[in-house]
Amino acid sequence: MHKIRMGFVGGGEGSFIAKAHRQAAALDGRFELVCGAFSRDPSNNQRTGNALGLQPARTYADWQQMIEAESRLPSDQRMQLVVNVTPNHLHAPVARQAIQAGFHVFSEKPAALNLAELQALDRVLLGSDRLYGLAHVYLGYPMVWEARELVRNGGIGKVRKVIVEYPQGWLSQDIARDGNKQADWRDNPEQSGIGGCIGDIGTHAFSLAEFIADQQVQSLNAMLGSHIEGRRLDDDASMLFKMNGGASGVLIASQVCAGEENPLKIRIYGERGGLEWRQEEPSSLIHRSLDQPMRVLRSGLGQPWLCAAATRRMRLPAGHPEGYLEAMANLYVDLADAIQAGGGGGNQAPGVPGMEVGLRGMAFIETAIASHRSDAKWTELVCPLQSRSPS
Amino acid sequence: MHKIRMGFVGGGEGSFIAKAHRQAAALDGRFELVCGAFSRDPSNNQRTGNALGLQPARTYADWQQMIEAESRLPSDQRMQLVVNVTPNHLHAPVARQAIQAGFHVFSEKPAALNLAELQALDRVLLGSDRLYGLAHVYLGYPMVWEARELVRNGGIGKVRKVIVEYPQGWLSQDIARDGNKQADWRDNPEQSGIGGCIGDIGTHAFSLAEFIADQQVQSLNAMLGSHIEGRRLDDDASMLFKMNGGASGVLIASQVCAGEENPLKIRIYGERGGLEWRQEEPSSLIHRSLDQPMRVLRSGLGQPWLCAAATRRMRLPAGHPEGYLEAMANLYVDLADAIQAGGGGGNQAPGVPGMEVGLRGMAFIETAIASHRSDAKWTELVCPLQSRSPS
Amino acid sequence: MHKIRMGFVGGGEGSFIAKAHRQAAALDGRFELVCGAFSRDPSNNQRTGNALGLQPARTYADWQQMIEAESRLPSDQRMQLVVNVTPNHLHAPVARQAIQAGFHVFSEKPAALNLAELQALDRVLLGSDRLYGLAHVYLGYPMVWEARELVRNGGIGKVRKVIVEYPQGWLSQDIARDGNKQADWRDNPEQSGIGGCIGDIGTHAFSLAEFIADQQVQSLNAMLGSHIEGRRLDDDASMLFKMNGGASGVLIASQVCAGEENPLKIRIYGERGGLEWRQEEPSSLIHRSLDQPMRVLRSGLGQPWLCAAATRRMRLPAGHPEGYLEAMANLYVDLADAIQAGGGGGNQAPGVPGMEVGLRGMAFIETAIASHRSDAKWTELVCPLQSRSPS
Amino acid sequence: MHKIRMGFVGGGEGSFIAKAHRQAAALDGRFELVCGAFSRDPSNNQRTGNALGLQPARTYADWQQMIEAESRLPSDQRMQLVVNVTPNHLHAPVARQAIQAGFHVFSEKPAALNLAELQALDRVLLGSDRLYGLAHVYLGYPMVWEARELVRNGGIGKVRKVIVEYPQGWLSQDIARDGNKQADWRDNPEQSGIGGCIGDIGTHAFSLAEFIADQQVQSLNAMLGSHIEGRRLDDDASMLFKMNGGASGVLIASQVCAGEENPLKIRIYGERGGLEWRQEEPSSLIHRSLDQPMRVLRSGLGQPWLCAAATRRMRLPAGHPEGYLEAMANLYVDLADAIQAGGGGGNQAPGVPGMEVGLRGMAFIETAIASHRSDAKWTELVCPLQSRSPS
Repeated sequence: MHKIRMGFVGGGEGSFIAKAHRQAAALDGRFELVCGAFSRDPSNNQRTGNALGLQPARTYADWQQMIEAESRLPSDQRMQLVVNVTPNHLHAPVARQAIQAGFHVFSEKPAALNLAELQALDRVLLGSDRLYGLAHVYLGYPMVWEARELVRNGGIGKVRKVIVEYPQGWLSQDIARDGNKQADWRDNPEQSGIGGCIGDIGTHAFSLAEFIADQQVQSLNAMLGSHIEGRRLDDDASMLFKMNGGASGVLIASQVCAGEENPLKIRIYGERGGLEWRQEEPSSLIHRSLDQPMRVLRSGLGQPWLCAAATRRMRLPAGHPEGYLEAMANLYVDLADAIQAGGGGGNQAPGVPGMEVGLRGMAFIETAIASHRSDAKWTELVCPLQSRSPS
Repeated sequence: MHKIRMGFVGGGEGSFIAKAHRQAAALDGRFELVCGAFSRDPSNNQRTGNALGLQPARTYADWQQMIEAESRLPSDQRMQLVVNVTPNHLHAPVARQAIQAGFHVFSEKPAALNLAELQALDRVLLGSDRLYGLAHVYLGYPMVWEARELVRNGGIGKVRKVIVEYPQGWLSQDIARDGNKQADWRDNPEQSGIGGCIGDIGTHAFSLAEFIADQQVQSLNAMLGSHIEGRRLDDDASMLFKMNGGASGVLIASQVCAGEENPLKIRIYGERGGLEWRQEEPSSLIHRSLDQPMRVLRSGLGQPWLCAAATRRMRLPAGHPEGYLEAMANLYVDLADAIQAGGGGGNQAPGVPGMEVGLRGMAFIETAIASHRSDAKWTELVCPLQSRSPS
Repeated sequence: MHKIRMGFVGGGEGSFIAKAHRQAAALDGRFELVCGAFSRDPSNNQRTGNALGLQPARTYADWQQMIEAESRLPSDQRMQLVVNVTPNHLHAPVARQAIQAGFHVFSEKPAALNLAELQALDRVLLGSDRLYGLAHVYLGYPMVWEARELVRNGGIGKVRKVIVEYPQGWLSQDIARDGNKQADWRDNPEQSGIGGCIGDIGTHAFSLAEFIADQQVQSLNAMLGSHIEGRRLDDDASMLFKMNGGASGVLIASQVCAGEENPLKIRIYGERGGLEWRQEEPSSLIHRSLDQPMRVLRSGLGQPWLCAAATRRMRLPAGHPEGYLEAMANLYVDLADAIQAGGGGGNQAPGVPGMEVGLRGMAFIETAIASHRSDAKWTELVCPLQSRSPS
Repeated sequence: MHKIRMGFVGGGEGSFIAKAHRQAAALDGRFELVCGAFSRDPSNNQRTGNALGLQPARTYADWQQMIEAESRLPSDQRMQLVVNVTPNHLHAPVARQAIQAGFHVFSEKPAALNLAELQALDRVLLGSDRLYGLAHVYLGYPMVWEARELVRNGGIGKVRKVIVEYPQGWLSQDIARDGNKQADWRDNPEQSGIGGCIGDIGTHAFSLAEFIADQQVQSLNAMLGSHIEGRRLDDDASMLFKMNGGASGVLIASQVCAGEENPLKIRIYGERGGLEWRQEEPSSLIHRSLDQPMRVLRSGLGQPWLCAAATRRMRLPAGHPEGYLEAMANLYVDLADAIQAGGGGGNQAPGVPGMEVGLRGMAFIETAIASHRSDAKWTELVCPLQSRSPS
């Protein structure tokens, strides 16, 4: 089977997330890196390309050049997929140009700087037959799919209550001032957009909640905060929300929960039971019920009680931990399948978060900030989706 | 040392909480039960008194009679303390009459049906030299005191964020209709007051948060819900809040989180670290920091790094679990110490939640419900405390 | 209901275990302390009796005097039960005299200094109608009974493998030299017997294994160790063993596992599943199976899937932790039931570890030490039980 | 940087471990698969080579042919490393021929069918300048290196006690009879050698214990078992052992602990503290001490208190779980470094378990079985290492 040729935009030396993407794409042997525009710093750019074993000619000075040059290569040589690991303000422009030049796109989130920009991108996408995916990594975990399937199959009854939380601690101090680049651009509205923590990790919590609960947030009531003098964007967000299927809930996202690592966690309660999943121990899904003892469903091949959607996202027998890179790799596998199947309906690879998740995420960020600024208790979350069939 | 003579109001056969009170009071050998008015049902009342080994004459037909008759006994025979384990609507009337007759009172919470009733009771109390305590059991756990001490000593820096949650599942179905008495009176506003879940367990979460954070909630933004047709009071509450020391937070209390038992949990984050405590594993207190690995402080005698306030609330070496009854017993021990010390300043036994906790809890219930009904985002929590010195 | 009158031998100021016994006996209101011989130090003895509110005349100078004097009291006044919390060398002598004088006995373990002494005591006991119980506290935990019931009902199939471990750390340093009295007498063979750690906690592990596995150890292969210069008795023991029902296993008991508290733990595996219970989190019993997801059975009233033997040992709804004192109190409740039922068959209170557990525990200690000293791989565990019906 | 060219022996369709090797080798982009002899079944062999994108000419009919043919290719094209994922009986023959033909070898464990065969291989290896590595995956986990470093640095004092356990459940039933190929060859002495469970996973436990404790097992006292009628090799092993640095310990390895997944776990206790690590939650290392609260060291970049050896084996910030494949990939990265550094001293890549681990593992298997068959309590573990410098 041929490997899919991919090119990177962003991800020079020191980029944690770009390295993670390359490792995740490599894991299952479905992709090869053929080109990149890694950094505006020519030296960093060259070093990165060399270190990754690229042909020198295919380490491009910038992404515009890369898209243009690759377009002119023979179809069996040129890249097929653009992986976009730039700061937020470049997510939409790169994607737009790549799609227009005929490339599939897999982008870091959030999908754009704001909803209007993303809607414009969506119109371009809809006019193409290209695939568009977003690196909502946590939707690649097998037990997240198991949870969703349990909800859909009535395993906990009608969903009433959703509690999703994502408390990090890494912005508890002013590390941007101390030279941390990740912290720096994330607090720059021109690069990051209007949301800080709410965009960076709030969207993960939001998407996870809608994905598993199988309902959409309709309105929300948010409080945002910023805890360091001079910090421009929010570093902490809490909100109440109501969903269109009748559930209500609480979402907490914070980057000033000092000492916390990355414990994204969701609990969903229905009429007859509840589910609990925690990213730091992703192999376990707790299932509580009114009428039987607590069960702990464990990730791992060879367990007939797990659903097919979960099992196909596992590589190893139970008890051999798979983690974050494997979850991201699951998105890459689904992307590879869809690309090799010839692209696809709705511009979305089945199993890969796409434009709909992107639009709802952007609407979420804007609505949360609007709610925070408003004296009204509830602010409606409006997300104008162009007609497309659900994934 | 003489044992303190106590009388019970309420707590006939089948009352879980009354039995827990009797066990907790017995544990450390400081109290003896001398009388009771256990039930309006004469047969239940007699059976209960007999089973508890009371002299028949001291099992009274009702609490009014009990207070009157005991008042007439010689001072070395009559009860010293009234333990009040009735439904909510009787909490204030019994306390009032007991105090006026010269008895100390230890009452189940919430302290009254509403804030006005409690303020009236407080005026009576202030005019007396009697002690008044509330069974906020969770404030009796040693590691809760350790957490409070760590916060006060700057162990996590200035507090920024408080997340307190109390998700139960036992009202997920209409068990009142099926004959569960606990569920039944709790949903009757005449017996329970205006709050359902918010009063029953929301107050526990609220008091725990104020106790450990060492700050007071100033305003809140609440959403309440009721998930069973015909249920009159709330069975679910979520809210955002702001505190007077600059912290903000989230409080979740629910009785429809199907499958959950009793996992009251609090997390508090400051500028340099965070604490986490969970009632279902009460022996562990997690302490996270920006500059050192996570520590797990464990309850148990013989650990010099624990504070005195925590250590004096333990009975056993580390690794020998103590639980709910021991926490409640800690309140009884402090009550006994204060009674034997001759009653006391501020009508409050040091270490025992008293009128201030009661007033703030009632104000919390009323404010939460007002906020729920309001279109305004934030509702101020006003709690008019008569002047008294802090405990 | 009348309370059962008990007298203590041992347990002056500073004795942790005596205080635990008094609290456990008090918890459910079934006992009253009427007399004691707490300490050979007259001052300590008097202070203890006073602090416990005894009549001065019933604080006796020594246990011989106590047994004699109480025997002469009217039957409705004299003590009914002797609680023996002395060091090991007094366990059998006190029990013997108490039984001969017509008192029931509840004794700390091990039951005697050696097997021969215990067999002699057993002959006295068999000639009486008195009850004899041993404070094997861990056999009072409800989830231990649930585990035993699951094994008996075939919930894991035929038992193949037992792993029981009890790693403590408190003797990692020479604390006897530093004045710790508990450590001191435990290392004195005249007071402690021939076993150190093997007797102190190895017997707990052993009894728990036989209790849940419902099989008896037939032979064992032991390695003992002592890690402090000058320490006379073992502080560490590990062994392999074979049981009469075909299972084999491993037992680990140590007091030099530095930093460990009290995590007695047992795992039992059968043909189709396994169980795991850990004393430091006693409310959870893990049940693994070949053909279904892991279940976590949780202690607490109101769960119809738990067996009656477990449920009757609980006081509180699920999620309200019960611990060590409650487990010990369960033994006292069963003792009270049997005493009030008129003593009983086999000299044993149903539910309370009795002479058979004591004899097997003594045989275990002696066999483990013999095995340690032997070059032979396996040493048979022989325990000559006088004929008695099983409990 | 050029990728290292590797060829696979074994690992046709359905081989879990071969797929894991390919994923682990791919993760960090240091290797490319250029050839293979995947299966004796020509059809499986071809399909596997095709699916992996090999040139048809480099999918060889058998491993002898592969080694011969690759030897004749130009040095910049031929494979550099043979990855050997065959059943045990082929481990040594393939390695021998590969080394003699000038290839580096990375082999599944155990390293040979028996110690004599491995010593012969070692002589060949010593006469070469080739690297030899063994897939002792668990030695690739970062927190295992952290534990070793803590022990070496005196973090727990002199080591006294080691408890290592590896309870699996997958051979609880006769799945070989039901067609499970993994179970089938593992029970065939001609393919598996004389050890069943003791060789398959006992060696993992053994190597982990020696690695972290930094001591060597000197003698052992073992009990093996086999629980299915007709099963030829052991499926369960327990033993006591003594180490050359004065520590003693217990090793448990079993494949009939029904319901268990893969919870390899080690605890090591020294004079002042203890460590605990569990493979199913590999990101946490528990550190207990006599003089401070329990600490939980967590895997993840950016934590200055972790040692360099641990940190260089991590890819992600704390809270982003890495698992089994990442641990294996760490071995591949170290192998790649050593190959590109020009092979090396002692035929071993620093950081990769090599011949010494292999020899000790084989000696362990043979000694455990000899001990099991012996009536003597202790059997010495003799491992004649040819002179080589320690890694």
